Amino acid sequence: MAKEITSRSENYSQWYNDIVVKAGLADYSAVRGCMVIKPYGYAIWEKMRDQLDRMFKETGHQNAYFPLFIPKSFFSREAAHVEGFAKECAVVTHYRLKNDPNGKGVVVDDDAKLEEELVVRPTSETIIWNTYKSWIQSYRDLPILINQWANVVRWEMRTRLFLRTAEFLWQEGHTAHATKQEAVEEAERMIDVYATFAREWMAMPVVVGKKSEAERFAGAVDTYSIEALMQDGKALQAGTSHFLGQNFAKAFDVKFLNKEGQQEYVWATSWGVSTRLMGALVMTHSDDNGLVLPPKLAPIQVVFVPIYRKEEELSAITEVVQKLRNELHAKGITTDYDDRDNLKPGFKFAEHEMRGVPIRVAIGPKDLEKGTAEVARRDTLQKQFVDQDKLANTVESLLDEIQQNLYNRALEFRESKTVKVDSYDEFKKVIAEKGGFVLAHWDGTPETEAIIKEETKATIRCIPEDLPEEDGKCIVTGKPSKRRALFALAY
Amino acid sequence: MAKEITSRSENYSQWYNDIVVKAGLADYSAVRGCMVIKPYGYAIWEKMRDQLDRMFKETGHQNAYFPLFIPKSFFSREAAHVEGFAKECAVVTHYRLKNDPNGKGVVVDDDAKLEEELVVRPTSETIIWNTYKSWIQSYRDLPILINQWANVVRWEMRTRLFLRTAEFLWQEGHTAHATKQEAVEEAERMIDVYATFAREWMAMPVVVGKKSEAERFAGAVDTYSIEALMQDGKALQAGTSHFLGQNFAKAFDVKFLNKEGQQEYVWATSWGVSTRLMGALVMTHSDDNGLVLPPKLAPIQVVFVPIYRKEEELSAITEVVQKLRNELHAKGITTDYDDRDNLKPGFKFAEHEMRGVPIRVAIGPKDLEKGTAEVARRDTLQKQFVDQDKLANTVESLLDEIQQNLYNRALEFRESKTVKVDSYDEFKKVIAEKGGFVLAHWDGTPETEAIIKEETKATIRCIPEDLPEEDGKCIVTGKPSKRRALFALAY
Ligand SMILES: [Zn+2]
Ligand SMILES: [Zn+2]
Repeated sequence: MAKEITSRSENYSQWYNDIVVKAGLADYSAVRGCMVIKPYGYAIWEKMRDQLDRMFKETGHQNAYFPLFIPKSFFSREAAHVEGFAKECAVVTHYRLKNDPNGKGVVVDDDAKLEEELVVRPTSETIIWNTYKSWIQSYRDLPILINQWANVVRWEMRTRLFLRTAEFLWQEGHTAHATKQEAVEEAERMIDVYATFAREWMAMPVVVGKKSEAERFAGAVDTYSIEALMQDGKALQAGTSHFLGQNFAKAFDVKFLNKEGQQEYVWATSWGVSTRLMGALVMTHSDDNGLVLPPKLAPIQVVFVPIYRKEEELSAITEVVQKLRNELHAKGITTDYDDRDNLKPGFKFAEHEMRGVPIRVAIGPKDLEKGTAEVARRDTLQKQFVDQDKLANTVESLLDEIQQNLYNRALEFRESKTVKVDSYDEFKKVIAEKGGFVLAHWDGTPETEAIIKEETKATIRCIPEDLPEEDGKCIVTGKPSKRRALFALAY
Repeated sequence: MAKEITSRSENYSQWYNDIVVKAGLADYSAVRGCMVIKPYGYAIWEKMRDQLDRMFKETGHQNAYFPLFIPKSFFSREAAHVEGFAKECAVVTHYRLKNDPNGKGVVVDDDAKLEEELVVRPTSETIIWNTYKSWIQSYRDLPILINQWANVVRWEMRTRLFLRTAEFLWQEGHTAHATKQEAVEEAERMIDVYATFAREWMAMPVVVGKKSEAERFAGAVDTYSIEALMQDGKALQAGTSHFLGQNFAKAFDVKFLNKEGQQEYVWATSWGVSTRLMGALVMTHSDDNGLVLPPKLAPIQVVFVPIYRKEEELSAITEVVQKLRNELHAKGITTDYDDRDNLKPGFKFAEHEMRGVPIRVAIGPKDLEKGTAEVARRDTLQKQFVDQDKLANTVESLLDEIQQNLYNRALEFRESKTVKVDSYDEFKKVIAEKGGFVLAHWDGTPETEAIIKEETKATIRCIPEDLPEEDGKCIVTGKPSKRRALFALAY
């Protein structure tokens, strides 16, 4: 096999990086912390983006586009936002290069210094609420339900492909409402959209819940998140939705005339998912042979590989493959035919496994005689012989089965890694030795949360929405608690 | 009418701006030279983008994504690129903000200065060819046919919405080939894709041709462009495709092992269109009532307006409208129903005209009695009564007719504004008094081209590909010429 990857047990983090690079998803670039998303990785992202975009439009949202740059002063407007938000931002200070007077090349032109520096957007609440001010006068202008697909920059010191990069692609929804209730409903609706997308398209189980105060987005009143569990037992926050109250409306003075003729501040939400989902997808399903993709997000769902010695065999196989591909195409299934003549079948098999193609169909001279084909599924690596005239139907139902199996497998894994603990000693032991999700009673204070984080590195991922109320005692302080929080080590 | 716009005869440039702003396409932002693309404008851009993307994929291209930032030193690598390319770029010099020690707000952290400044991409040849270096070893790695949808920044001093903004959205194709011929064919193929898109989707006639040396892209061996004529008689370059030779391969040392086992430099193309197309679309078709959209790019193709006094009338109309909308929806036609209860029909009519909805259908109590509806087309403003049971078919063919009529009208306009001239006096007179496209013999030298530009402000838009060879004399120098060039004042 040409492109070996590190096994998970050997080095999980290297395994992840190997898959991202060797499956052709992304690579580091010449610019520190910035990645190149390669065609195969981008094709997966496009499938995610298109489906999310459909779901946003079905829930009444429209796309728009706001500037890449934000005046520095905008960041000071919303106090919690500027205090809580990381200040690691790319700052534009000049607007011109000039030829170097002392030699070759170009230098920054000192005469072209901006009066006010511009920040490359790390998120767009400020510039968008500054814009909404001129769009909103009366309740008739509300709600505004806008989403933006964009690139954002946060100057991270330690970067990992897809999981944490200086520049990443994302969508950010920014909505404006006449009432608090409507805004809260919107924030909840969108976290549910994300959860549905994660489960049904990424085959990734997620826990939906509210963030604790300490883990909230800077400027939010409430933050909802979806949390997934990776194969190394660490949690990954895969999407967030924020109820922003009237904070940004107050910071940017955005009022509207309500039905009663009174001026009121507008209520806001924002919500986003990013190319980080690509990292979550890789880590949820892949194995030591490479990437495993849920069929709904695979750019190529079925690859055909001819097994032949002589040219006549190849042309006979090609004829059959063409017929089968047409049948699959008619069912809306995407296929590829790997007839490269300089590579052996074994090499091709390994490469398509590496790239996570859900189903591989191999056809050789024996198959031609018998009217069969060898169908291999990527999730279980099982193979079966299928009659060619039944192949299209078999493949169609197998794709559904793989999609479902990946979800079930990930859910079982998560369940096996989710434990309730009732003492701090047990908590520490589980976090240190087993990892995974830990459900524990907590007294609700940031102080206790900080102690736990300090002593175990575990954080509160969320207060799960589906968890019933239950009387208990905080594992640290012993104070009474009404429900458990979900703790984990996290990406 | 609530939102009056300036007429073209009064002030063409103000007319353009009024339409862009009042039809809800875009608006200026708080950041100098950067625009906000509003939902309606973005919906049109999405339709353009989706169709172009389909055409790129049909011609074998894949999407990918490269970093927003380019190390400053990359710009010095390709000599013509750095010399010829505008140096008005946004430059990132720092990567952190900090709380202002002297008060409120944030300031740039001087301790966080980048060792090498980063330029926000004005175009991505340099970063992409630096990446291709590690992707290309042998002829088997070629061709690379990649496109990127991205935002780019060029620090323009005088900006106009869509036509020239500091930040704009575009796509940039960057391909790598084993032979010169293949690269030239690719550059020509893509300019033809743009021409087809302009004609068939934007209903905008364009002239395809090669640029003169002076108008070529910095770093290109040949630049092809599509040129459209706006209603004020000025040309607008709507898309370009460049044959880059081996210039970028040499600058970034990108070689490949050919079939004969020799190292060769790779051949390159790049090609792009941008949100500037939105400006071209507006100026090609719109009139003094507002935007006019070709049906293929209209987010809403048909709007229904109920005419009523009493609530019972409204509900009877709504029932009919619902049925008609379903029929249109089944034909893939997008519709809207404007049942806002606080606005008069006349106001609504004016608003939908302003926004360029291709067909308006009004239904009142009389129509209910007679089983008819009033159908108004936006391009000619003509109205007709149509039987409700024939409405879906009528609307369907009317949409085709409008698409075709817009193209024909624009083509007739262009033909009426295209003249051949054979003397420099006549040339000056036409350019100064009539505008439009002027076909004239030119001796092929940059010197003569510069004189003409200096004296008349007209530039060579292209050497049209479809123009037959013809013996003639340069209008300025009298030297022999084999074919005419296309001159115009330009955006
Ligand atoms: Zn829920
Ligand atoms: Zn052509």
